[in-house]
Amino acid sequence: MANLGITPRSQGFSDWYNDLVVKADLADYSAVKGCMVIKPHGYAIWELMQRALDDMFKASGHSNAYFPLFVPKSFLSKEAEHVEGFAKECAVVTHHRLMNNPDGPGVVVDPTAKLEEELVIRPTSETIIWNSFKNWIQSYRDLPLLINQWANVVRWEMRTRLFLRTAEFLWQEGHTAHATFEDAEAEALTILDIYRRFAEEWMAVPVLTGVKSENEKFAGADHTYCIEALVQDLRCVQAGTSHHLGQNFAKAFDVKFQTDKGALEYVHATSWGVSTRLVGTLVMAHSDDKGLVLPPRMAPVQCVIVPIWGGKAELREKVVAASERLAERLRATKWSDSPLRVRVDAREHESPGYKFNDWELRGACVRLELGPRDLEANQTVLSQRTGGEKAPVSVDNVCDEVCRRLDDLQRLLYRSALDFREANTKRVDTWEEFKAIFEPEGGAGFVVAHWDGTVETEKAIAEQTKATIRCITLDPLDPEDDKPGKCVYSGKPSSRRVVFAKAY
Amino acid sequence: MANLGITPRSQGFSDWYNDLVVKADLADYSAVKGCMVIKPHGYAIWELMQRALDDMFKASGHSNAYFPLFVPKSFLSKEAEHVEGFAKECAVVTHHRLMNNPDGPGVVVDPTAKLEEELVIRPTSETIIWNSFKNWIQSYRDLPLLINQWANVVRWEMRTRLFLRTAEFLWQEGHTAHATFEDAEAEALTILDIYRRFAEEWMAVPVLTGVKSENEKFAGADHTYCIEALVQDLRCVQAGTSHHLGQNFAKAFDVKFQTDKGALEYVHATSWGVSTRLVGTLVMAHSDDKGLVLPPRMAPVQCVIVPIWGGKAELREKVVAASERLAERLRATKWSDSPLRVRVDAREHESPGYKFNDWELRGACVRLELGPRDLEANQTVLSQRTGGEKAPVSVDNVCDEVCRRLDDLQRLLYRSALDFREANTKRVDTWEEFKAIFEPEGGAGFVVAHWDGTVETEKAIAEQTKATIRCITLDPLDPEDDKPGKCVYSGKPSSRRVVFAKAY
Repeated sequence: MANLGITPRSQGFSDWYNDLVVKADLADYSAVKGCMVIKPHGYAIWELMQRALDDMFKASGHSNAYFPLFVPKSFLSKEAEHVEGFAKECAVVTHHRLMNNPDGPGVVVDPTAKLEEELVIRPTSETIIWNSFKNWIQSYRDLPLLINQWANVVRWEMRTRLFLRTAEFLWQEGHTAHATFEDAEAEALTILDIYRRFAEEWMAVPVLTGVKSENEKFAGADHTYCIEALVQDLRCVQAGTSHHLGQNFAKAFDVKFQTDKGALEYVHATSWGVSTRLVGTLVMAHSDDKGLVLPPRMAPVQCVIVPIWGGKAELREKVVAASERLAERLRATKWSDSPLRVRVDAREHESPGYKFNDWELRGACVRLELGPRDLEANQTVLSQRTGGEKAPVSVDNVCDEVCRRLDDLQRLLYRSALDFREANTKRVDTWEEFKAIFEPEGGAGFVVAHWDGTVETEKAIAEQTKATIRCITLDPLDPEDDKPGKCVYSGKPSSRRVVFAKAY
Repeated sequence: MANLGITPRSQGFSDWYNDLVVKADLADYSAVKGCMVIKPHGYAIWELMQRALDDMFKASGHSNAYFPLFVPKSFLSKEAEHVEGFAKECAVVTHHRLMNNPDGPGVVVDPTAKLEEELVIRPTSETIIWNSFKNWIQSYRDLPLLINQWANVVRWEMRTRLFLRTAEFLWQEGHTAHATFEDAEAEALTILDIYRRFAEEWMAVPVLTGVKSENEKFAGADHTYCIEALVQDLRCVQAGTSHHLGQNFAKAFDVKFQTDKGALEYVHATSWGVSTRLVGTLVMAHSDDKGLVLPPRMAPVQCVIVPIWGGKAELREKVVAASERLAERLRATKWSDSPLRVRVDAREHESPGYKFNDWELRGACVRLELGPRDLEANQTVLSQRTGGEKAPVSVDNVCDEVCRRLDDLQRLLYRSALDFREANTKRVDTWEEFKAIFEPEGGAGFVVAHWDGTVETEKAIAEQTKATIRCITLDPLDPEDDKPGKCVYSGKPSSRRVVFAKAY
């Protein structure tokens, strides 16, 4: 195999990840500290994520809208916990004009163009959106209000990592208003289930669903639900959150509605989001030392056709034309409700071996080789990015066979990730064992242990081990997890086990 | 007709527009000066625009990507004309943290968190993108590079109007790199044609295609192509631009490539964009005093079904169920390559009359009324938002009939807009007549006149009449327009006529 300049995972997972993201053309560093450029191949994955999620949001009654990028500084302060959580790391706009530098070349900030009130680039949009909801909601007939927004947000980050943590990132943020606590609770759980299904059925990434501890919940929420994934270096990624906001933002922005009985009440709210972080999660969950391994539903190229002419120019035209015809047939085939995504790699000056490596790097799910002898035999040689046998397939059956392989691969990746998680989930009952597991640098899988329910214990554990409570699972991984016991740290009574891990 | 609180066009086009945009739930004012909220109904139109354009961009070989929101201040200065055009009105980020106010409640900017170099919120992304292209382009094999981005941008505006001119707006911006001047020229014209087709075939808005005068071209372009639409108040809207940038940005960011002969040359570039301004253009082109009139290809609701139960609760269930069945059949029908977009308005507490007005306001193209007697007769009463006869239709034929009506309406709106433009395009040869036409407040249609080709004349005309050169048409509206004559203002020789109008 050609050396692609990717550090093997065994020599450093973090270097492997950074190398892979850049070499596979998913993203690039930018001139602006902490901000990345999402390159076409990475953006194509994000578009597939957007389409699948957007369809699920719309099917469950949500509409898209768009709210301003800017949040007046004073809005952030209206919800007490929220400002604590978000004011500390944000981009602040103070002026609205540049001018020619009077003392030299270039431009400088025009001091006469200072804003009366500074504007913050949204780190999340609860405040600016609830300021609008105040005008949109008068009566119970206006509820539920189910809004989603696809947008960029900015949280000033010092330690960044492509896709997983960047100053600017892309996401969707849902914001909903309801007549009752129960309605808001049902909404938060509906979305959590959409996130779980998307992670498992589309990304082939099994996730724990649960509720966050007080210490880890969203700043301004009543409680926060989450999906948590385990990736190959045994760290956990928080992949999505769904917040039940109670009446906190309704009170902060004075949003009341007339009930069907004529009373005036504050509305109940949720907010929820997933981001381009999912792209990083996807890469870390499945990929290998050769490059990207993508589940077919998330692959921009599901099938690549490599025509082979053995350096004989007179054969090239023929095999390329046959490849294009084959591609057209495949594109007319639907798999998972979409036309197959097929590419013909007819590059003239690259060898077949180079192309094979290149498409392994870029995560094409299935490769079809088509040479002169294949043409004569009315066949093509099929291989799968991971798993499965390399084998000749009759051109007559190739559409069915490609679909079958994609089904296999989608299932295989989910099954492998689930096996991996199960093999790396431990139940621990003593503090010595707990500490020993998290002692080494790096991830250590999921540890399911008893906890006394206090913030003090949670913080003490995090300080001594860097492990945090990822969630209190909704469906215990094991029925025993739901029974009382003694806190692994304090020895005090615990009502049930919770899940610890080191997280990104 | 119920008074919807919309000013009639005859009493003030501007008030009519603002009222309509707000009442039809397209957009709303926000707490941030100059920024709007795009509400679900307005955003649904934008999503239809995005989908259609994105499909055309991808079919012509373009890929989407995403670049940072922030532009380092110094980047803006790298292209001399560009900084003049864009530095004067931009949002400047100077700090990255807020802190609790030491002197009272709320938060203030943390003075210790000042950025070393200020960041500008992108007013357009040429500079940040060309800084990346420098790393992406080495050889002729990397060309053409055909990138598009869907993003928000900010240009500080004092006088704003919903959709047409706001401080923040949504758009797409294409950025491409090519080996030769000819390739870049072909790209700029390919995109211009996509814009024209989109405006005419999707929005039903006829547009002039042409090139901008030196004075009106993009800051940093070699030349700028545009599409220009005439709306109902006889003003012109610049609806899209496609810039041939020459080698200006390649030189500013030092982007060279090795040619197939081994030489090192600067690449040639284009950039091009359309924005949420198109939504405003669409509204101004077709709508009436009753509300939105939308061409079917741009209508979030193409067909609304209003069940009628005459206040008899026992009938409601029956007609609503029949309406839902009808809706399912319609949704299974494709028109213009997409499933029909159908809504059943089963609201319990609103009268049919209220619903009729409401859906006229919101621009549903076709309405189907379904009452108990219709059910018995196996029919539904169909009416069209504008034009066409109200008539009963057999339920057996309704899918075909709805499609036929949508075809009609799409054609009718384009035809009406084209007739309107033709009726309001005049050829003028004397300065007296020219001045008289533009004398009154407001729009005055297109005036096709000779111009001596100088910036001085163009500016003098604009000062005295507020009319600007909208474009030098690529295909003259009349063969005579392409012949030489004398400048309407200076009397000096003119090689051909150009198009003047007052513009938004």
